[in-house]
Amino acid sequence: MVPHLITALTGPINELEQRVLESMPAIERWFRLEWMEHTPPFYSSVDLRNAGFKLAPVDTNLFPGGFNNLTPEMLPLAVQAAMAAIEKICPEAKNLLLIPEKHTRNSFYLTNVQTLIRIFSMAGLNVRLGTLDDSIKEPTALPLPDGTSLTLEPLIRQRSRLGLKDFDPCTILLNNDLSAGIPDVLTHLHEQYLLPPLHAGWALRRKSQHFRAYEEVAKKFAKLLGMDPWLIYPQSVAVGDLDFSTGQGLDALQAQVDNVLTKTRRKYKEYGIQEKPFVVVKPDSGTYGMGIMTVRDAKDLEDLGRRARNKMSVIKDGQVVSQVLVQEGVVTHERMHDAVAEPVVYMMDRYVVGGFYRVHADRGEDENLNAPGSSYVPLAFAHSSHLPAPGEKPGASAPNRFYMYGVIARLAMLAASYELEATDPEAEDYA
Amino acid sequence: MVPHLITALTGPINELEQRVLESMPAIERWFRLEWMEHTPPFYSSVDLRNAGFKLAPVDTNLFPGGFNNLTPEMLPLAVQAAMAAIEKICPEAKNLLLIPEKHTRNSFYLTNVQTLIRIFSMAGLNVRLGTLDDSIKEPTALPLPDGTSLTLEPLIRQRSRLGLKDFDPCTILLNNDLSAGIPDVLTHLHEQYLLPPLHAGWALRRKSQHFRAYEEVAKKFAKLLGMDPWLIYPQSVAVGDLDFSTGQGLDALQAQVDNVLTKTRRKYKEYGIQEKPFVVVKPDSGTYGMGIMTVRDAKDLEDLGRRARNKMSVIKDGQVVSQVLVQEGVVTHERMHDAVAEPVVYMMDRYVVGGFYRVHADRGEDENLNAPGSSYVPLAFAHSSHLPAPGEKPGASAPNRFYMYGVIARLAMLAASYELEATDPEAEDYA
Repeated sequence: MVPHLITALTGPINELEQRVLESMPAIERWFRLEWMEHTPPFYSSVDLRNAGFKLAPVDTNLFPGGFNNLTPEMLPLAVQAAMAAIEKICPEAKNLLLIPEKHTRNSFYLTNVQTLIRIFSMAGLNVRLGTLDDSIKEPTALPLPDGTSLTLEPLIRQRSRLGLKDFDPCTILLNNDLSAGIPDVLTHLHEQYLLPPLHAGWALRRKSQHFRAYEEVAKKFAKLLGMDPWLIYPQSVAVGDLDFSTGQGLDALQAQVDNVLTKTRRKYKEYGIQEKPFVVVKPDSGTYGMGIMTVRDAKDLEDLGRRARNKMSVIKDGQVVSQVLVQEGVVTHERMHDAVAEPVVYMMDRYVVGGFYRVHADRGEDENLNAPGSSYVPLAFAHSSHLPAPGEKPGASAPNRFYMYGVIARLAMLAASYELEATDPEAEDYA
Repeated sequence: MVPHLITALTGPINELEQRVLESMPAIERWFRLEWMEHTPPFYSSVDLRNAGFKLAPVDTNLFPGGFNNLTPEMLPLAVQAAMAAIEKICPEAKNLLLIPEKHTRNSFYLTNVQTLIRIFSMAGLNVRLGTLDDSIKEPTALPLPDGTSLTLEPLIRQRSRLGLKDFDPCTILLNNDLSAGIPDVLTHLHEQYLLPPLHAGWALRRKSQHFRAYEEVAKKFAKLLGMDPWLIYPQSVAVGDLDFSTGQGLDALQAQVDNVLTKTRRKYKEYGIQEKPFVVVKPDSGTYGMGIMTVRDAKDLEDLGRRARNKMSVIKDGQVVSQVLVQEGVVTHERMHDAVAEPVVYMMDRYVVGGFYRVHADRGEDENLNAPGSSYVPLAFAHSSHLPAPGEKPGASAPNRFYMYGVIARLAMLAASYELEATDPEAEDYA
């Protein structure tokens, strides 16, 4: 079944699509020059929201799960990109140690890990799985839906190297976002490549830093194309010193929500947009769509009930939320069988390797879709395996739309690269 | 319509397929290490023959036409590979000058050129076409089957740079194999990248040098896999000082044909192969399947009639043949609707980007298929967009078979790299 997807077919995004297609060689060259100065994250996925009048990334994941949602047609692209990445980082590499999330009984997640193993084996590496779960003391088989299984092995740390029994890897790839903090076993690994670096994990990473970098990238790119950068970035402000359980800092939060709503209202007026602006309040670090709140009026924060405050205060792995990001909300006008859909783009090294639609039947167009009950439609992106055709009417061609999604997702990846440079604890200061 | 393709399902090639699949990470790493020492040709295509008991390349094209035969699903792989190639050679590149063959009225060839333009535009270059045809004095539109057109422009040479009117390229890509000799306009271009280099053209290139390099590569690879290298290379000997019109040198040719037939017969005996060996005699330089002869018995050369000798003596662009390659013939046991088929694999930089079957209804299994009347079935290779599955029975899975074809084709590409290093007139001698 090929899903029927309704994309908003009018407004500024179509003009953007047109300009993006016309400027294809210039855009690709621009990226090429950026990658001469900056190192792309090893892999990433970006959630996009297409409002018809605006297209923006809302989440950039540096430990992407969900490779299981890519169609078989997309995997050769991932293998080729993995080859290019390995060639640059460690061409002599023989062994790759992959460290997945701890909650590894989820069969979708396990299939994601299986897909990653396949991609890196095809790219020329022996791949084995090491776990951060201390309760696993010996190799443990985890059954997969296709009847095969994965083997998780306990990590062995010897002085400055990390490995498994009879397995000394040159590169360690994390598919665990370190929300629970940085385990000792991963620190001071100076002889091996640890990818992504520790400061990319949610123990240290901040969304506000990412979106600050993204705003910079979006402005550069908008200048190249001669367009308003607001069309591709969500306004974002960080608010700290919060304690949802006592109510501390909620007034500052309210002020910033009002600030972002006011600015957004002004922009909507400029473009003649009839919709009601909203903001999304989310923890400045952390993932899995937890602790996220949609606010349409700053006053709504005044009578935030105990339940709502509890929901906001603690997220994945029991982390307490003391800083949030107040972000301009971007509605999604994409629909599949009346369900709200948002595109997710996957990248490896500096290449787009695939994507799919995240669809949620029970959520509104202004809500976060990365939540229980969401489903995935990899089919929708299968058309991305066709090259864009510059001649086609904007909005009419799936490959053209997907090319534009790939461009915006790569801007977010480039922002992640800027972000990781700025936050690198080992970076030397040449100033 | 999906073609029904019969591949020989028994014998040593299935063992080879098994070993290739099991050794996938080791093979990919081996290639990675080779590419650290050697530069892949910018692009290439390799004709393979699968005899069931033997799989070998029979032609390695460094100016591949036929990109029009790749399916749309394969093009993103080509774009990604082109991006990687450009990044390495000339990341600042803005303009690419593409020089096609002169006989550019053939609509299949023109569609090939159109596909190349598309690939390199998507990879971030402004592409324009310059022609070696002196009769074209101003921009000339050539209509394409899809209703659009290509514009050929006269070349402008200014001191050490080559370009078009208002177009100064950083890189010049040849899609013209220089069978007619090296035009002055292409010499001494020291400020620009000329790809592939002039000595890759048939004005200087010799098949015997390629197959000597291929034998070396095949032996290295066979050692890695612990197998007989004969299973993947055709024995080849060059014979020079020939004049087909006077009969000069035909006795030496006959001796070498007998020599290769005898060695092949010995190998067939070793493997219990019931077939009758044959050799293929082809010009040592040149392409387009011209001047090629199948010989089953050295005695047949004694009564070579005038017509056969005329056919052998002059090939593309009126070049006279004075040196030939005597090559062990490899039958093709692949069939599509009873027509003989051979796989052609396309590569860009060091990546396999696609392929198709060349099918010829009127030719025998021991004849050259690159001839008038051949057709192409890109569909058959569409399955190559699925990754190989190590678990599957050899010969049973199209992606597995295609992976093996990709490995052998890359060995031929690596041999071309060795060959171009050995024949580089500008190479310094460190001995």
